[in-house]
Amino acid sequence: MNDVSAPTRLFLRIWFGKSAMFGPGKAQLLEGIRDTGSIAAAGRLMGMSYKRAWMLVEEMNAAFRAPLVESVRGGPGGGGAQVTETGILVLSHFRAVESAAARATADDMAALQALLADQTKVDISGGK
Amino acid sequence: MNDVSAPTRLFLRIWFGKSAMFGPGKAQLLEGIRDTGSIAAAGRLMGMSYKRAWMLVEEMNAAFRAPLVESVRGGPGGGGAQVTETGILVLSHFRAVESAAARATADDMAALQALLADQTKVDISGGK
Repeated sequence: MNDVSAPTRLFLRIWFGKSAMFGPGKAQLLEGIRDTGSIAAAGRLMGMSYKRAWMLVEEMNAAFRAPLVESVRGGPGGGGAQVTETGILVLSHFRAVESAAARATADDMAALQALLADQTKVDISGGK
Repeated sequence: MNDVSAPTRLFLRIWFGKSAMFGPGKAQLLEGIRDTGSIAAAGRLMGMSYKRAWMLVEEMNAAFRAPLVESVRGGPGGGGAQVTETGILVLSHFRAVESAAARATADDMAALQALLADQTKVDISGGK
C-alpha cells in the first residue's frame, strides 16, 4: 500500500461514526472480487488470508444498506462472489473521494514535500 | 480521534515515501506543544506517554529539513519546548490539506453516507 512510485501521497480513510470504516484496503478487495469473481482469490492478490478477506466483506455488507458483495451459485468453479450494484457505487464514490482530494490538495502537498529533509527525499525517490 | 460529533468524515494521512508519515496525531501533538510549551504536557493532553510523545517529535524533526520542535532553556519551569517556524508551516499546510479535501469531497461523502445501513446511521448519531 506504501508504493514508492507515488512519493508524497494521501492515505485516506472514511469513518462512519465510531465503528464503520472504508479505506484503500477494502476498495482494493472489492476491485479484486470484481475482477476475479472470488473472495479468496481477491484476498490472495493482497497477501491476505481467506478468513480476513471474508471478515472484511462481512464488515462492509453490514455497514451499508445493501450487501456490497454477494455469493453466486453454480458455474464451472462451483460458485463464487460478485460485487453488487451498491458495491460498485461505494467503490466509485471512494475512488472519486480519493481523486478529488488529491486534486484539491496538490499545492499544499507540494509545499510539504519541499520542506522535507534531503534524506526523506532520497527515501522517496527509492534510493533507500 | 474518532469523534462521533463529526459523523462521516475523512481520516487523512500524508506519506512521504515509505518511512515518513504525518497525520492527525502529529498535528494534534504539535498544536499541544504550541499551546502548552511542553512536549510532556502536550502528550498528556492526548493520553500519550512522555516517551511516545518524544519519539513522535524526533520522527518529525528527522523527516523535515529543519526541526519542527525545539527545546527552550531556562524560564520558570526550567525550560520547555516550542514549535518552530517550519513546524507552524507544516501544521498549517496539513490543516489546509484536511480542509481542502473535506470541501472537495463533500458530495461523494454525502452519497456514501446515504448508502449506509440504518444501524450504521444510528451509530453515527450517537445512539449506540
